[in-house]
Amino acid sequence: MGSVAWKQLLLNALESNSHLNHSSFMQLATIGANGTPSNRTVVFRGFQDNTDNIQINTDTRTRKIEELKLCPSAEICWYFTDSWEQFRINGKVDIIDALNPDPQKLQQRENSWFASSLRSRSQYLWPNPGLPCLNEKAEPEISLDPSTGPIDAFCLLILEPNQVDYLNLKSNQRLTFKSSVTVAAKKSWTVERINL
Amino acid sequence: MGSVAWKQLLLNALESNSHLNHSSFMQLATIGANGTPSNRTVVFRGFQDNTDNIQINTDTRTRKIEELKLCPSAEICWYFTDSWEQFRINGKVDIIDALNPDPQKLQQRENSWFASSLRSRSQYLWPNPGLPCLNEKAEPEISLDPSTGPIDAFCLLILEPNQVDYLNLKSNQRLTFKSSVTVAAKKSWTVERINL
Repeated sequence: MGSVAWKQLLLNALESNSHLNHSSFMQLATIGANGTPSNRTVVFRGFQDNTDNIQINTDTRTRKIEELKLCPSAEICWYFTDSWEQFRINGKVDIIDALNPDPQKLQQRENSWFASSLRSRSQYLWPNPGLPCLNEKAEPEISLDPSTGPIDAFCLLILEPNQVDYLNLKSNQRLTFKSSVTVAAKKSWTVERINL
Repeated sequence: MGSVAWKQLLLNALESNSHLNHSSFMQLATIGANGTPSNRTVVFRGFQDNTDNIQINTDTRTRKIEELKLCPSAEICWYFTDSWEQFRINGKVDIIDALNPDPQKLQQRENSWFASSLRSRSQYLWPNPGLPCLNEKAEPEISLDPSTGPIDAFCLLILEPNQVDYLNLKSNQRLTFKSSVTVAAKKSWTVERINL
């Protein structure tokens, strides 16, 4: 197993499940403000540039943002329903919102905004998610100009993996990938076969 | 919305997605021993008797057991891929292992053992899950007598929900169900419509 072999396994799983709309759906667990676990479905928005960092779009008004500010650790559980593969990806999450001081990160946020559909983008203009619904209509009618840049509520999350547990229920194989950082600040991965 | 209306919504979702093998797969988030979130796919094993408590079978040797002993709070995220419905079910987990002092709980554990397939049962005789794999063969050859009662490693988890967040991505509806306990120790549920 070479370095970041889990990324290749994940790319293979994405490819072999790509006929399913939900293949990009994964569950993100965080720690709630009251110290209990929190878990919800999010959409995989690709890897950040040439890294193994995972991109997720979200609304700054959702509870996960306040949770990640208190505790940036998260674990993704991603089950591929056609290939019977599970990835558990543990790492820390960087929150890139409109107020981020880093111009490069703001550029990444803008790229992720324009990479999503116009319908996805318009949701960031909807009423505050999670608050009581005062409107009878399920979906607000909002039109957004395609050239409009990221709305304030739009937020890019970057999860930097430090451990990945891979399970294949067809071949009955399980692998654990662990990262470490060398003295030269270079990240490297080891892999071990594990009992199911 | 009557009491425990979320249970009816869940039963409906199970019914309308029952043609999919993975419809009983859900993601269970717990808090890891190091304080970071932990997340994995588990199988829904039905409701406990006539309650709204959720049953899960697991192996006492898995990491989730030590995690749940430290912090019994958990959140299930259950996404139904055909009906586009998500249930986030937050609650506390009761661990029923072979050493449980309550005869009624031991009976429930035995019932859940015999309700699972012989193949599922034999997995509790496999080598310690999560430890390095010393055997070349992916799947150990173990035969288990169908009349054999629960193996020591077999454990029944009972999640008692206290809050349920329901999201329907077809109708764009979101509901939050919250439970409270009356002075007569009777559990009741309230429901509120929430912005997506």
